[in-house]
Amino acid sequence: MSPDERRDGVFLEDEALRDGLQMEARRFSLEEKLEIFHLLRRAGLPRIQVGAFVHPAVVPQMADTDELIRRIGASPGTVISALVLNDKGLERALACGVGHVNMSVSVSDTHSRKNARCPAAEALASMTELISRALAAGLDVQGGLQCAFGCVYEGPVAQEAVLAGVEAMARAGARDVSLADTTGMATPLSIRRLVGRVRQAVPEVRVSLHLHDTRGLGLANMFSGYEAGVRAFDVCAGGLGGCPFVKGAAGNVPTEDAVHMFEAMGIPTGIDLAEVCRAAALLEEKLERPLPGRMQRVLKHAGSC
Amino acid sequence: MSPDERRDGVFLEDEALRDGLQMEARRFSLEEKLEIFHLLRRAGLPRIQVGAFVHPAVVPQMADTDELIRRIGASPGTVISALVLNDKGLERALACGVGHVNMSVSVSDTHSRKNARCPAAEALASMTELISRALAAGLDVQGGLQCAFGCVYEGPVAQEAVLAGVEAMARAGARDVSLADTTGMATPLSIRRLVGRVRQAVPEVRVSLHLHDTRGLGLANMFSGYEAGVRAFDVCAGGLGGCPFVKGAAGNVPTEDAVHMFEAMGIPTGIDLAEVCRAAALLEEKLERPLPGRMQRVLKHAGSC
Repeated sequence: MSPDERRDGVFLEDEALRDGLQMEARRFSLEEKLEIFHLLRRAGLPRIQVGAFVHPAVVPQMADTDELIRRIGASPGTVISALVLNDKGLERALACGVGHVNMSVSVSDTHSRKNARCPAAEALASMTELISRALAAGLDVQGGLQCAFGCVYEGPVAQEAVLAGVEAMARAGARDVSLADTTGMATPLSIRRLVGRVRQAVPEVRVSLHLHDTRGLGLANMFSGYEAGVRAFDVCAGGLGGCPFVKGAAGNVPTEDAVHMFEAMGIPTGIDLAEVCRAAALLEEKLERPLPGRMQRVLKHAGSC
Repeated sequence: MSPDERRDGVFLEDEALRDGLQMEARRFSLEEKLEIFHLLRRAGLPRIQVGAFVHPAVVPQMADTDELIRRIGASPGTVISALVLNDKGLERALACGVGHVNMSVSVSDTHSRKNARCPAAEALASMTELISRALAAGLDVQGGLQCAFGCVYEGPVAQEAVLAGVEAMARAGARDVSLADTTGMATPLSIRRLVGRVRQAVPEVRVSLHLHDTRGLGLANMFSGYEAGVRAFDVCAGGLGGCPFVKGAAGNVPTEDAVHMFEAMGIPTGIDLAEVCRAAALLEEKLERPLPGRMQRVLKHAGSC
């Protein structure tokens, strides 16, 4: 590769243990989650979202997040992250000593009412207040806006609502905001438009993308996001994932397929593809069904996984 | 959509009946093929590749191509196409009265030896001669170059080999050449580079893309091709497809997912998504396994398919 073709690396956060597992009927034990975590860590994922501080009755799979984070303990070189959606969640995050949290709200009223039980504006106001407190308590915070590219209940979402959300989170001190395509409604062009607008309006915020692959556009959208300047993306080993409150939401972009795409274009990820495929294979084995990720099968066929 | 956002439409050719079925162990009867053809035609596919004039012992599924084309008869508004790889195939094409043929060779020596039983240069020389004859006989011809973005046996393929192939086919009179990513090794950047180079070097040729989704990059590559100026793409209902001579080759880009991607970006395809999903559903039913296409499931979930 010639020097002028060298490209910026990307930062991938694996969320198989959170967004991936939260919808699964099969309960994963703490030991099983640790096994998957260690495979992902060995693969070189720079950040791993391991759980969510949500009500255990609502998402039972995430009930042991606190304990999982304690068991993981120190993990030099790998940031451990978890989802925080309310006061109680922030308390739990601080108590178990996690260093990084994602704090997100939906920009769609209907989705917000179903998910957070209040309208979007109200959820945003509470969340920005919570973000300030989390930052003041020393947590590393990534804000997040769900349904940023459309909502299955409401259809298209106004760019202004997303912009207002990013601005509010920036005022609260967040320097990193994730735009989530919760139900896979984004297209390469809508990614380009929204990301371009947000990066121009709020240049102090690093935009990352959380893309679901419901309509098969996950990697196309990721590539479009990269071209628009995004360098951080959420992924899930195997392509696991979904949202318990959104009908028809499908998995995230498979970690292994994202790693392949970027590395094949000379864009470093710092991640070992074969190791990620091991994590995906383990998830498939435990769930007893094929997952959507392609590269695991490609490597298996080539005899190297 | 504002007038400045209006975008050129795309031309999609469905190949489920040829590239889709050729690897399937289950034999499809003539009646079944006709049923699928009529669903695709009703969906508005402007061109449908219905078979291949290849040796029936090598690809038995394609043995009834001549008869299928006769049974289809006149089909105003829909171009019927078939694959021609040698003299005997051209004879059969002319005898059954098909109007459009795809005539392709591999740019990879190893793939060419396995597929066409001769080195790539020799295959190209024979094919350009055959293309001239087909054109002289009044056929509408699309040239094709297989493995244009890499070969599982040989790895990367030199752009020069592809360029030489397009130029040779152009000299033979072809005005339309398909670049095939036979084993899904292209990336959005390699698509941009090669398509850009070919369009610049041989501007009189319309470049189309035949993309396999082996590594999940089919739609990302299609979008990149569109951005690079390509307006014609091959697709397969359901995402069926593969190559009998290439280990690990997986399906083509699902027609329904390509239609969704373009239409969601305001790029007209002239194709009815719900109708294509019916064809994909029929293929799934007959093959008794889920196919990779996403939009069939999305529409089913939304109650409209």
